[in-house]
Amino acid sequence: MSQLQRRLAEFAKARDWEQYHTPKNLAAALSVEAGELVEIFQWLTPEESGRVMERPETAHRVEDEVADVLSYLLQFCEVLGVDVLKALAAKIERNEKRFPTTGSGHSMK
Amino acid sequence: MSQLQRRLAEFAKARDWEQYHTPKNLAAALSVEAGELVEIFQWLTPEESGRVMERPETAHRVEDEVADVLSYLLQFCEVLGVDVLKALAAKIERNEKRFPTTGSGHSMK
Amino acid sequence: MSQLQRRLAEFAKARDWEQYHTPKNLAAALSVEAGELVEIFQWLTPEESGRVMERPETAHRVEDEVADVLSYLLQFCEVLGVDVLKALAAKIERNEKRFPTTGSGHSMK
Amino acid sequence: MSQLQRRLAEFAKARDWEQYHTPKNLAAALSVEAGELVEIFQWLTPEESGRVMERPETAHRVEDEVADVLSYLLQFCEVLGVDVLKALAAKIERNEKRFPTTGSGHSMK
Repeated sequence: MSQLQRRLAEFAKARDWEQYHTPKNLAAALSVEAGELVEIFQWLTPEESGRVMERPETAHRVEDEVADVLSYLLQFCEVLGVDVLKALAAKIERNEKRFPTTGSGHSMK
Repeated sequence: MSQLQRRLAEFAKARDWEQYHTPKNLAAALSVEAGELVEIFQWLTPEESGRVMERPETAHRVEDEVADVLSYLLQFCEVLGVDVLKALAAKIERNEKRFPTTGSGHSMK
Repeated sequence: MSQLQRRLAEFAKARDWEQYHTPKNLAAALSVEAGELVEIFQWLTPEESGRVMERPETAHRVEDEVADVLSYLLQFCEVLGVDVLKALAAKIERNEKRFPTTGSGHSMK
Repeated sequence: MSQLQRRLAEFAKARDWEQYHTPKNLAAALSVEAGELVEIFQWLTPEESGRVMERPETAHRVEDEVADVLSYLLQFCEVLGVDVLKALAAKIERNEKRFPTTGSGHSMK
């Protein structure tokens, strides 16, 4: 993943796009791509949403959008110097304490 | 990253949350977290947005939200069997052809 | 509605918030509020989502978020001089031609 | 506005789209359209964002997206029986108490 992150940074630098890549703009771009992912599912039933990879066109759209989301997430973390894997590991540990396995209900926030 | 993905899957399974984790719901949750990341930046100038890690409270919020985004992205990819790193590598290769370094303008879409 | 739009404009002016209310920031704020609306529904089944107004707390959250969405939409339109009702009327007319009633399928885009 | 809301309801009914229009789906659709509005502005500076109506193509995109946002907002409110103008008027009143005009700072949440 850190290798992909480096390639993305070089890609932006080579095209002189760094000027556009403020944290604010990258966060917005990330949310736009997340919206495009939601769009694929917006009118589907829960069951239909589980079968999106069966049709090649939809499968391709899904792969494209998750790539875009990860791309902007990594670029966002790069410009701010955030270690996203470390942040996620810390979050999982906090959540393991916050939602003990004997508990019930769902509000993972 | 694949290790974190496994921990997230076990976390959801142990709490009987798998029933909620349809691709549709996970995509929605991802976009909600992306929105919470945007919220941190919504009234900031481009310059201020580059300094969010200087204040501990904001830095913590940023880390928390990127962790949430990655968490739902990995869970989404897990339930659909999508290899997100492979999807991103393929996307970067397509973009390297689509936007040759001599080109100008910015519309990475 | 135009009366509410005026009150919102005066509200922002009286607090010297106009400096923050660029179209870019207001669009971001609108999407953040839309995300908060989605959050209410993210783990609900389609059926449960139809009953959110039965619980006073959830009903209040829904009302609060739709007010926020409309608030930022009207402020966005105000700063850009867009007549949103006219834009919607035009859109409905285009859609009536684009999706004749004998047609089937759903992709209102 | 209530007239447009009625036309939207008839439009959906005539096309048998009511089955897709759960509150959950309409909230998702609203956030997708809000994301498309943000997309127009994502790489613009604050100053450039104030000039989007000067170019006919961008002006048309803006009008199209605000129409979509209002469309889904009205349909969402219709299926849940929420009076969005009343909700906004109540919100403005709460905010007038919460942010007295002598105050400073900006965190309209």
